[in-house]
Amino acid sequence: MNDLQLFKERSNEAYEIYLPHISIDCVVFGFHDTSLKVLLLKLKGLESWGLPGGYVQKNEDVDAAAHRILEARTGVSRIFLEQFKVFGTVNRSEPSLTHMPPDLWYRQRFISIGYYALVNYKDIVPQVDDISDACEWKDITGLPEMMMDHELIYKTALETLRKQLNYKPIGYNLLPEEFTMPELQKLYEIILGYTLNRGNFQRKMLAYDILIKHDKSRKGGAHRSPILYSFDTEKYNKALEGGLNTGW
Amino acid sequence: MNDLQLFKERSNEAYEIYLPHISIDCVVFGFHDTSLKVLLLKLKGLESWGLPGGYVQKNEDVDAAAHRILEARTGVSRIFLEQFKVFGTVNRSEPSLTHMPPDLWYRQRFISIGYYALVNYKDIVPQVDDISDACEWKDITGLPEMMMDHELIYKTALETLRKQLNYKPIGYNLLPEEFTMPELQKLYEIILGYTLNRGNFQRKMLAYDILIKHDKSRKGGAHRSPILYSFDTEKYNKALEGGLNTGW
Repeated sequence: MNDLQLFKERSNEAYEIYLPHISIDCVVFGFHDTSLKVLLLKLKGLESWGLPGGYVQKNEDVDAAAHRILEARTGVSRIFLEQFKVFGTVNRSEPSLTHMPPDLWYRQRFISIGYYALVNYKDIVPQVDDISDACEWKDITGLPEMMMDHELIYKTALETLRKQLNYKPIGYNLLPEEFTMPELQKLYEIILGYTLNRGNFQRKMLAYDILIKHDKSRKGGAHRSPILYSFDTEKYNKALEGGLNTGW
Repeated sequence: MNDLQLFKERSNEAYEIYLPHISIDCVVFGFHDTSLKVLLLKLKGLESWGLPGGYVQKNEDVDAAAHRILEARTGVSRIFLEQFKVFGTVNRSEPSLTHMPPDLWYRQRFISIGYYALVNYKDIVPQVDDISDACEWKDITGLPEMMMDHELIYKTALETLRKQLNYKPIGYNLLPEEFTMPELQKLYEIILGYTLNRGNFQRKMLAYDILIKHDKSRKGGAHRSPILYSFDTEKYNKALEGGLNTGW
């Protein structure tokens, strides 16, 4: 079966299964050690890359659809996903798919609901499916050309993530259970894209009151053994809900 | 023409004009002096109230649709609207509309895109249309029963607005051009629903560096004439984009 036949078969199924005009795109950020990556895939027959995405079944909640779509790409079912914006301009799909027949499912106008997640990329094995040639982590410092408006969706997700550093805690599931203040600072710096003052960072982070300081320090050859911290999960989760301790 | 005939006629038009399955709901908060209100309407034949909403035309951007819908309700075309969340559970419309025939446009499953706005309610005259009995400002301290999941949409918008007080400036177009620190504090208190410490509020607000302090003070009979401030619009708009001066 050639690519077009495959897309036509999938198109007919899609009209049966999914709500028309509505799609989901997921921006999955992967952090590990010192780099931030994003999960991209390449549809068969296209040169540019795209975000993992899909559609909403006629009898499925939108959030459930996002989890189903992401599980198919990552093999992981319980990724914390957050809706961040709807992308709804009329011509957002053009010109990426104009080589396909106009009655194909994929040629509709889609209003896309953007979700993002931040995971430890070592925990996930990207999954290729039969309409894609590749599904890979790409470092955000050297992203390939993207299809449709996916670069805008990715950039909006990164902006959202950066803004959320000001009012939401971050780091759980991304750092080892016990970590040093410089390791936590590095996570913030990688996401923000610039370096931070060490003293200010520590003062502000401790004021948030979401860390537990441990008596022991990590074994190693350095002159000064760095102090270890872990997240106080109760306070961390409370801050996830209600915001960090910076409010009015 | 009775109500059902009217809804049927509108239903037929809607299938022609709009994308199926997608709706928009607007939470318009109105502030003035010492109260916060929300704009609600009552569809003909329903007992409960609803948010002003509508649908996306087949050739219309989603944001443009939100502005069109709100203009029809308020007569005002340039309200600053912000998308805040998509409401997409399967059964979110039930049971409000189950008395209508199942093939009616309004009985579809709708995934609704929530927008909110904060305006000075004195600037707006609510507009009733021919499928509604009423369109009114209701004080948030005594809201009537709402249809579908509109109470959830309203509450989520209010939560979003409250969280944004921590990282976005607020007050432009809501306060007179020159205002006192207690007047600005009152706006925050009305939105948050609790009182704030005066000294802390002033210190924090001045640290944001978005105010211009005026030499003159307001004339009046009080022992102490309150100092007048206005927003530094350049800094205010920069903070709207990039966040308040609290970041890393």
